[in-house]
Amino acid sequence: VEGDFKLILKEWQAEVNTRLMNELDGRRPALLYQPIRYVFEGGGKRIRPVLALLSSKVISGAVDQCWDAAVAIEILHNFTLVHDDIMDRDDTRRGRPTLHKQYGDSISLLAGDGLVALAYQVLLRTRSSQLDEIARRFTDGIVVLCEGQAMDLEFESRTDVTLDEYLEMISKKTAKLLDVSASIGALVGDAEPAEADALGRFAYNLGCAFQIQDDLLDILSDESTTGKTYGSDIKRNKKTYLSIHALNEGTQKDRKRLSSLLGGADIGRDEIDEVKGIFQRVGSIDEAQRAVQHYVESAHRCLDKLRFDRDKVFLLGFLDYISNRNA
Amino acid sequence: VEGDFKLILKEWQAEVNTRLMNELDGRRPALLYQPIRYVFEGGGKRIRPVLALLSSKVISGAVDQCWDAAVAIEILHNFTLVHDDIMDRDDTRRGRPTLHKQYGDSISLLAGDGLVALAYQVLLRTRSSQLDEIARRFTDGIVVLCEGQAMDLEFESRTDVTLDEYLEMISKKTAKLLDVSASIGALVGDAEPAEADALGRFAYNLGCAFQIQDDLLDILSDESTTGKTYGSDIKRNKKTYLSIHALNEGTQKDRKRLSSLLGGADIGRDEIDEVKGIFQRVGSIDEAQRAVQHYVESAHRCLDKLRFDRDKVFLLGFLDYISNRNA
Repeated sequence: VEGDFKLILKEWQAEVNTRLMNELDGRRPALLYQPIRYVFEGGGKRIRPVLALLSSKVISGAVDQCWDAAVAIEILHNFTLVHDDIMDRDDTRRGRPTLHKQYGDSISLLAGDGLVALAYQVLLRTRSSQLDEIARRFTDGIVVLCEGQAMDLEFESRTDVTLDEYLEMISKKTAKLLDVSASIGALVGDAEPAEADALGRFAYNLGCAFQIQDDLLDILSDESTTGKTYGSDIKRNKKTYLSIHALNEGTQKDRKRLSSLLGGADIGRDEIDEVKGIFQRVGSIDEAQRAVQHYVESAHRCLDKLRFDRDKVFLLGFLDYISNRNA
Repeated sequence: VEGDFKLILKEWQAEVNTRLMNELDGRRPALLYQPIRYVFEGGGKRIRPVLALLSSKVISGAVDQCWDAAVAIEILHNFTLVHDDIMDRDDTRRGRPTLHKQYGDSISLLAGDGLVALAYQVLLRTRSSQLDEIARRFTDGIVVLCEGQAMDLEFESRTDVTLDEYLEMISKKTAKLLDVSASIGALVGDAEPAEADALGRFAYNLGCAFQIQDDLLDILSDESTTGKTYGSDIKRNKKTYLSIHALNEGTQKDRKRLSSLLGGADIGRDEIDEVKGIFQRVGSIDEAQRAVQHYVESAHRCLDKLRFDRDKVFLLGFLDYISNRNA
């Protein structure tokens, strides 16, 4: 079964990539579409379109009608990466210079805008009697993404962020678009709203698990497999489940030491090891792992409630794929 | 009649302003919506929503169903202003600091993204059996706006831009959204596609006239009435109908002198007068005025073709309003 999932995953990822490129055929001016091409060439796991396709498949047994919506969601995701990288002043993504490093801020800002519009163009080609509702959910997703990014920006200048606030932020910035992907896929498959919501909640929980796991991988992962630099969140003083937990729950001495270490641009492996030690002592790592487990189990339960058994095995495969990264 | 138009114009502008503010009720976080509020408070002539409402009125006799679409178009227009101001590094708009001067680039970039999403949320509340087509035209408008902005950015580094290229750029950057406003208004009024297209072409021609007239006002206007600084396009070396015409048609001596004057940040009134003199001698001002006249007449002819006579007088009022700014 896992083999089956990996097989369609590979096939669909390739198809998404082909369709992304095809969208750019014949479009001009190059100053707008060449940067967009650069973004598409950057690759990625394409998990959002795959999730939309899986949802459509579970509901209707078919994915043919869902390609446009799936590709639209991937385009939208790429828009958020381009604009977030500008705001976060990130220099690299997937081993290449970020778009704004390559083309400058103005052109990247504009390319991001073009990506949103392109996403809607592709989405609105979808043949569905529920297209209005699909477009509404897609749009709500963008509003919530912007709200999540605003919270993230706001957190940068605060030291008193709570875990609840952090969970709200990641649910808006990460989980919501997975929710939207699954529920739109279901609607394209002509699901009832309640079925679409159930698949959406499955994806939402998976999204929360995914993000907290991402926070964990920053200090637990093997660089050679994930490509993530050890302690990069710590160096950049990025708020994570771990740092927020430790800053809220640690002793006064721990909190003081953490505050002086986090965000030190020139801190080395020793200092990151020290931060990791504090996270361990305060119980932040255990707590984060429990949170991941909690969300994965919630995702599982959402699937139990689904009326459909056909093809559900693929959703389980997806769940394993997402929750066992580098485990 | 002109009195009638001015009356509903004032009433509708006020209603658009109220509805824009109402859209922000209860939304958070403030870091996203406060900047958006700042943008809405900046005011403006609201000509795009007014045009949508007029189109709806001409087709159906009513505007009630059109408010959401009209407000959505104004929100979209504000998105383009926010992002264009970032790209163009403009410091002031309508007598106030631009958004990025007030809140910084990151928050303004994000606020612009929020405006696009908000525009779709409002648009998709429209009750219409043609909502899919409405959303498609709205989306095509954004794609074309981005293409126009890309051309504008590209022109900055070129000295060989032709008038045809310039006209393509302004048709994408300015005329298209007026086209979309009118055609969406017509569709909300349940127009046939051909009727929507006719109103769209009316607005498109008016948009071209509007932009070239804007270029003329830069050197012909009285600052106290338009609020435009004398020669600001010349100081910023912004490509206009006038500068492109003169650079293409002037003598070698004129072109050389123009190239040295345009974009001189510290040039004063005397140099701007000199540029104006060159524009006059080369015939650029006459030619621009002929172009404005041509587009206004084309707009008129589009109205002649309309089957509807009811309320057409308001569209004529709108045409006069747009084409007689500071005349």
